[in-house]
Amino acid sequence: MAIFSPVNAVTDIIPQLEKIVGQDGVIKRKDELFTYECDGLTGYRQRPALVVLPRTTEQVATIVKLCHDRQIPWIARGAGTGLSGGALPGADSLLIVTTRMRQILAVDYDNQTIVVQPGVVNNWVTQTVSGAGFYYAPDPSSQIVCSIGGNIAENSGGVHCLKYGTTTNHVLGLKLVIPDGSIVEVGGQVPETPGYDLTGLFVGSEGTLGIATEITLKILKTPESICVVLADFLSLEATAQSVADIIAAGIVPAGMEIMDNFSINAVEDVVATNCYPRDAAAILLVELDGLPIEVELNQAKVEEICRNNGARNTAIAYDQETRLKMWKGRKAAFAAAGKLSPSYFVQDGVVPRTQLVQILSDINDLSKKYGFAIANVFHAGDGNLHPLILYDQKVPGAWEKVEELGGEILKRCVELGGSLSGEHGIGIDKNCFMPNMFNEVDLETMQWVRQCFNPDNLANPGKLFPTPRSCGEVANAQRLNLGQDKKMEEIY
Amino acid sequence: MAIFSPVNAVTDIIPQLEKIVGQDGVIKRKDELFTYECDGLTGYRQRPALVVLPRTTEQVATIVKLCHDRQIPWIARGAGTGLSGGALPGADSLLIVTTRMRQILAVDYDNQTIVVQPGVVNNWVTQTVSGAGFYYAPDPSSQIVCSIGGNIAENSGGVHCLKYGTTTNHVLGLKLVIPDGSIVEVGGQVPETPGYDLTGLFVGSEGTLGIATEITLKILKTPESICVVLADFLSLEATAQSVADIIAAGIVPAGMEIMDNFSINAVEDVVATNCYPRDAAAILLVELDGLPIEVELNQAKVEEICRNNGARNTAIAYDQETRLKMWKGRKAAFAAAGKLSPSYFVQDGVVPRTQLVQILSDINDLSKKYGFAIANVFHAGDGNLHPLILYDQKVPGAWEKVEELGGEILKRCVELGGSLSGEHGIGIDKNCFMPNMFNEVDLETMQWVRQCFNPDNLANPGKLFPTPRSCGEVANAQRLNLGQDKKMEEIY
Repeated sequence: MAIFSPVNAVTDIIPQLEKIVGQDGVIKRKDELFTYECDGLTGYRQRPALVVLPRTTEQVATIVKLCHDRQIPWIARGAGTGLSGGALPGADSLLIVTTRMRQILAVDYDNQTIVVQPGVVNNWVTQTVSGAGFYYAPDPSSQIVCSIGGNIAENSGGVHCLKYGTTTNHVLGLKLVIPDGSIVEVGGQVPETPGYDLTGLFVGSEGTLGIATEITLKILKTPESICVVLADFLSLEATAQSVADIIAAGIVPAGMEIMDNFSINAVEDVVATNCYPRDAAAILLVELDGLPIEVELNQAKVEEICRNNGARNTAIAYDQETRLKMWKGRKAAFAAAGKLSPSYFVQDGVVPRTQLVQILSDINDLSKKYGFAIANVFHAGDGNLHPLILYDQKVPGAWEKVEELGGEILKRCVELGGSLSGEHGIGIDKNCFMPNMFNEVDLETMQWVRQCFNPDNLANPGKLFPTPRSCGEVANAQRLNLGQDKKMEEIY
Repeated sequence: MAIFSPVNAVTDIIPQLEKIVGQDGVIKRKDELFTYECDGLTGYRQRPALVVLPRTTEQVATIVKLCHDRQIPWIARGAGTGLSGGALPGADSLLIVTTRMRQILAVDYDNQTIVVQPGVVNNWVTQTVSGAGFYYAPDPSSQIVCSIGGNIAENSGGVHCLKYGTTTNHVLGLKLVIPDGSIVEVGGQVPETPGYDLTGLFVGSEGTLGIATEITLKILKTPESICVVLADFLSLEATAQSVADIIAAGIVPAGMEIMDNFSINAVEDVVATNCYPRDAAAILLVELDGLPIEVELNQAKVEEICRNNGARNTAIAYDQETRLKMWKGRKAAFAAAGKLSPSYFVQDGVVPRTQLVQILSDINDLSKKYGFAIANVFHAGDGNLHPLILYDQKVPGAWEKVEELGGEILKRCVELGGSLSGEHGIGIDKNCFMPNMFNEVDLETMQWVRQCFNPDNLANPGKLFPTPRSCGEVANAQRLNLGQDKKMEEIY
């Protein structure tokens, strides 16, 4: 575990790196390296020894081979918007940053595929193909900034993953550089490829198996009609029950989100959508897409279900402007919480949909027990929670208590049959909780896979899996060294 | 590579096996073992040394541990309907057959999941949940016989995989016994689980990574309305163009199948559906599902597209009886070919949808070159072809030429950007073609994964990957030993 040890041989390879990518492709000045000391999980910070900015698969392969030969740890970084510290550098490591790998390599409308480099921003994919009537479905909230390479590492989701699945459902093939520097192609242009599904294995592997340098994605036809239903309720239970009833009615909304009273007021204070009633216990946002008539019928059904569960009001938006207004508050929820409280911490957990009411009640109990307010915003259709714990970083011991509280929420999610992470990944933030979800044999089996791709543990060491110094200990060391930082996710 | 060597120590463990599963759970009599000498690919036959019939995960784990300790090769077998010889035994191997593992372990309608043992027949899943308005989407043509465990091994598809995806899209979690006898749990009750996607890795691994003993599947709501459009054309190109246009119009049919003139006549001769015009160059079957109004609108669009491409007639079926009649011929196509010709061989390849016309023209050329008639039946929406090569096994050298022709078709599929297999797997039948699709590094990377789960190569040796004695050589050895057998797939 060399991740936090002092700088070593990595600076020795500067001449070779400059030969590979040019002088302007190697960042070595201390002040310039500051940019790269954290990703979206800013509570953990570490300046890398060196940053390199390749442009091609071949350059990446040469760099990774060099690291392999010199036994230098390396970390791939996309746009740096990750929320689990997956791109946190080690002091002795090389950061391979994909910001110069931003080419759209091919578009094939007939077969509905697009080939991109990993630095391409998520939203650019849709922008590239929207004129022809297509879009790329996975839409993390950071989609105007985050990159496809990072989406692959974290298997990113988004509002639309309820109907369309996460990133793994949209990747057909990958060109990879694995930790020995070999270039490997997995998957292909068609969904059915024989042999082991290494494409699926790689998506969500959080940078521990290699780096994707060419990515073949599926693109979908833009729906003919889109509608958002906004319903407000006087009880959170009734809101959750509506979610269950909508799914039970056979409707698969494109997205289905709940915000609780606390989040509603935070949002209205900060961005003033004037859409969300401040006295509602919760609001439910349901996006429906498809043929116009299908959307209309489902919209009527959703409204009826909400009213049967006691919704006070329902509002409907078909036009883009109103739809965006309805979503604006949801999209601004994290930033709003950040403005209301000196600090906040966003957790990411999953429960089976039927356990939503239970986990919300448990979170409420934990909130009282620990004495921190918690705003609840979540992808309700998937059972994916994002509780926002509000606290003041200046109060001594507050962060430790918040971290403990966040951990309690995760443990409860797992106990209820859920998961440690819906879409933000494990990274450095949650690897200590992996044994809560997986037993020793399960984790060992994953380690086998890591070891066969990454036997020297050079690719993103210390992430994803528990280590003797996981979570608390490393975090404490980091905080002592660098000062506690607000865990801000401006782009969430 | 011990797969075809003489019987060895496996019979020594009979007493231990009988202790684990009872005397009636071990099959050792030569005449009884004949049942297990091949799967649906009957051209390859080998009696196993021994068959064991466990009932529980723990029994499977104890058996596999015993094999591990004694270094005995073993092969898992479900219903034996596989078409690539994935369950072909070795002479010295133990066949672990799941026919006594047929329990439905749990059903959760609220979360839309079902937990089954691997021997549960595909169709039973739908039968179990249909009363509550649910179904299980993957529907291989053998669904009334094939088992979920086998579906997992081969990542089985079916008519409905165009819209709903193959088996891998419907498996949430697995309890596995891996080749050292450990019990491992991968995935879970919710789709989002952190760590490597070992569930996805295992699905389609053709028995080389272990055996699934408990399987958590997604179940879907039964569509409110289903309609089949049957269109007939005077040119195959126009039929393929209609497929492209339907997809380009943003319609995602539940299934979309083409049959050519040869197949039409074969089917009408044998099962007389009286649905398919004998003089049509091809027919197109399009199944649409969803809300009634959505289905109606899409049905009208599909009809219009077909007519614009020169379809002579279109017939529409909403009622179940007529729908089943329209599908009957398609479902009977392989059996019909088997009745028209002394022997036939069914190939399974994939091309990008836009290459359908090209590959059909190439297949036509190859048919002329080799002098064998070929009937074409295919999942057109996915570009998944099932050319049926008709031949006479009694003609000396015919089978060798057919095998060569089948190989030429596969190579052409790969050249056109497609794949060696859409849904039947690689098994023993196509492993020699893997280097046509994957380079050495790609294959080596897959081998790493195999080795980390299955380092002694005890689990299904000789399958999936090319070996020094792949395909031709082994096949010839088999044929010389056992006599050429008609490659019959009564259940296709």
